[in-house]
Amino acid sequence: MAKGKKFVEAITSMDEDFAKWYTDIVKKAELVDYSSVKGCMIIRPYGYAIWENIQKNLDERLKATGHENVYMPMFIPESLLNKEKDHVEGFAPEVAWVTHGGSEELAERLCVRPTSETLFCEHFAKIVQSHNDLPKLYNQWCSVVRWEKTTRPFLRSTEFLWQEGHTIHATAEESEKETISILNMYADFCENVLAMPVVKGRKTDKEKFAGAEATYTIESLMHDGKALQSGTSHNFGDGFAKAFGIRYNDKNGQLQYVHETSWGVTTRLIGAIIMVHGDDSGLVLPPRIAPTQVMIIPIAQHKEGVLEKAEELRERVSKVARVKLDSSDKMPGWKFSECEMKGIPVRVEIGPKDIENNEAVIVRRDNREKIVVSLDELETKITETLEIVQNALLEKAKKHREEKTYSAVTLEDFIEIADNKPGFIKAMWCGDEACENKLKEVAGVSSRCMPFEQEKLSDKCVCCGKEAKTMVYWGKAY
Amino acid sequence: MAKGKKFVEAITSMDEDFAKWYTDIVKKAELVDYSSVKGCMIIRPYGYAIWENIQKNLDERLKATGHENVYMPMFIPESLLNKEKDHVEGFAPEVAWVTHGGSEELAERLCVRPTSETLFCEHFAKIVQSHNDLPKLYNQWCSVVRWEKTTRPFLRSTEFLWQEGHTIHATAEESEKETISILNMYADFCENVLAMPVVKGRKTDKEKFAGAEATYTIESLMHDGKALQSGTSHNFGDGFAKAFGIRYNDKNGQLQYVHETSWGVTTRLIGAIIMVHGDDSGLVLPPRIAPTQVMIIPIAQHKEGVLEKAEELRERVSKVARVKLDSSDKMPGWKFSECEMKGIPVRVEIGPKDIENNEAVIVRRDNREKIVVSLDELETKITETLEIVQNALLEKAKKHREEKTYSAVTLEDFIEIADNKPGFIKAMWCGDEACENKLKEVAGVSSRCMPFEQEKLSDKCVCCGKEAKTMVYWGKAY
Repeated sequence: MAKGKKFVEAITSMDEDFAKWYTDIVKKAELVDYSSVKGCMIIRPYGYAIWENIQKNLDERLKATGHENVYMPMFIPESLLNKEKDHVEGFAPEVAWVTHGGSEELAERLCVRPTSETLFCEHFAKIVQSHNDLPKLYNQWCSVVRWEKTTRPFLRSTEFLWQEGHTIHATAEESEKETISILNMYADFCENVLAMPVVKGRKTDKEKFAGAEATYTIESLMHDGKALQSGTSHNFGDGFAKAFGIRYNDKNGQLQYVHETSWGVTTRLIGAIIMVHGDDSGLVLPPRIAPTQVMIIPIAQHKEGVLEKAEELRERVSKVARVKLDSSDKMPGWKFSECEMKGIPVRVEIGPKDIENNEAVIVRRDNREKIVVSLDELETKITETLEIVQNALLEKAKKHREEKTYSAVTLEDFIEIADNKPGFIKAMWCGDEACENKLKEVAGVSSRCMPFEQEKLSDKCVCCGKEAKTMVYWGKAY
Repeated sequence: MAKGKKFVEAITSMDEDFAKWYTDIVKKAELVDYSSVKGCMIIRPYGYAIWENIQKNLDERLKATGHENVYMPMFIPESLLNKEKDHVEGFAPEVAWVTHGGSEELAERLCVRPTSETLFCEHFAKIVQSHNDLPKLYNQWCSVVRWEKTTRPFLRSTEFLWQEGHTIHATAEESEKETISILNMYADFCENVLAMPVVKGRKTDKEKFAGAEATYTIESLMHDGKALQSGTSHNFGDGFAKAFGIRYNDKNGQLQYVHETSWGVTTRLIGAIIMVHGDDSGLVLPPRIAPTQVMIIPIAQHKEGVLEKAEELRERVSKVARVKLDSSDKMPGWKFSECEMKGIPVRVEIGPKDIENNEAVIVRRDNREKIVVSLDELETKITETLEIVQNALLEKAKKHREEKTYSAVTLEDFIEIADNKPGFIKAMWCGDEACENKLKEVAGVSSRCMPFEQEKLSDKCVCCGKEAKTMVYWGKAY
């Protein structure tokens, strides 16, 4: 039996139909199932285990930097949502409304939280009196609801899971520092854990969060050349503080408004992992986020001593990695395919001949490279290989992004690239929203961000030709 | 300055007004805040940290026994909720209904999950075909909503946090085994982590879960003699499987219905911790669940070397316990009171004289015992003391429960006890719901459970005098 033979039902090829490839993977890798609740997803054990690894890593980082977890109600009274004008305009059209409790109609309807700024603000106003009470660095892990018309698992769903951080500070400098420091934490997490390079930058006014003074973002590039906003961090200045009356007595006994931030990443990151690393055999998971890093697959397991040896290896590897042993009665080829579909970074094959030679075969998921290793150094080789795979995935993703990042200095070039070369387009911008709208209209792209790492491609706005203020990353986006 | 002096605002004494004492504690220990959302609570960092410790311990136990976490939608379409008759009758009167998404009225209204049996059943029906697919041992951590008329933080709130386990099995024996094994896990957790003894038993038909064949419960006794249902585990038999068509092909190729269980504990456990261990100075937390186990409080911290020494001790103790150092500029007496209010199991006082003598003073929260220890053996003594406090709290709670558990063999005695002696009443029962109702009416108590550990107090039902079938724990309950 050929080891490479596909035993699990094949998925659509990504070049043929990327959207279909994506939904095939989320179903066949058993990340998600659909339910009778339109637009909502069931996150299955394997998908949820990825989310738990994301949570664990981020939660540790947040706690190490002094953030504390809290839990706010899932409902927001309509009058509370209405308190900050820009915010309610941004969210009211897409919230779910609770109108009845049991058989009684409510006096005031409640929305299911689309985000919790208003609840945090109301709470902050109650608990903050003095400069000694500041800063408050709060975070919550929960689900939120936004009434989306078209949905896709992980990328855009009516309900999704996220963390939302909400902090208040004495000064504008401190809130800006927090906003940037969280953005850097997100970027580091994406690069070093998810093996996904990101562009850090600021959103234009048109694209910023409802109620924010400044929104910062990390933008990543998917395999098909579309951009994915992967995390955002907002500085609210004192806008919400004024709307909600969040004030403190400073050291001189003067009443001052606090400065506020909020920031979040969501289960969307799982969609990003799929679309950055996956291939036509299924998921490819970076070792640092993979629920199972190593799968041990016995060959000819009916033969004496094979299963025992495989179990012995599992036990040994469990000291250095998250490992499982597939001792089911499926054929090895089937097990290989399942391992590939689930994106398990490394598989270890062990059969009678390997045992005789005191060897095992390590196979990398990312490039299928096979390495024959002595059993004496199995743990070391596994650890090394996981590290190599992690780095290789990041390098590959970086290379992909570089190859798909283009520059345009004329509108003609810009449109030509947008029409024919999926990817990021770097181009200068005058700062006028009219040009943003026009580029959307003529090229179908939106501004992704004004990157922190600026380049001066030309003096002029790619759209109107007037003086350019900043370089912008543009692209089609999820 | 007298060390025992109260610096934080005093709380109501528990003997004077237990309900007021309880709400004073949840506010002043900063566990909870109220919001403008009626019946919903804000769980503040200290309260949430307790919940995180509960989660961490239970989640490890669940994973170690093969359970996997998943996430189901928070909404249930009305038609789905209606699928199991008893279940919908039990829950429909107390659910919140979403009727609008954005500005559009929904074709079918959705309830916010009060519990997720129906969603799990729908999913199970899709993913289970063969006996190889069984068992499925699923759990989810989430919040649920039940439209309660009168609410109290942690004990009864419109929204609360919980874990809900949902499992399906091939046979009735396996589902019963799972139901009991989870109940035992809950009981072990309560006793060994929360230092809270529980009575394990089965609910009467009147008190069982809507749709269950059998509901098992752990019942604990609060300081005021009221019972608290602290966790439940339900065996559904094949009732839900039949309503939702969850079938599998057995080894002989015959279609069979699965057997199902569900079980849960909630943030209510935090209310139990408060009411079992707390005193008139505030919370008393068992060390194994306390977010901060040890607080180091410098005395005369302005004197040279004191803060440095305190920080050195904090660093050392951090190797063996969750420790903090209070180096704020509050007076030591104030810090002591805060420590007591927050129930921190052990505080360490270190001042210039202690440093000179190479000593520190360890003070237990539960009985205020002071122990002078050599700094050379600080870590050992801290570890020992935390263990001693943990055990002492369990012993005290057990003693309290024993003292407040009464037996009655006549109705007259039963009423006399119910009227004058708050606690559990053990009494025989014929099994007839009419007697349950009558005891509620004449004595104001409900059946808590039919305990696994039965005693034969008499041959006759305490209420009607007919032949007794079982001994029941009765009590007034939260």
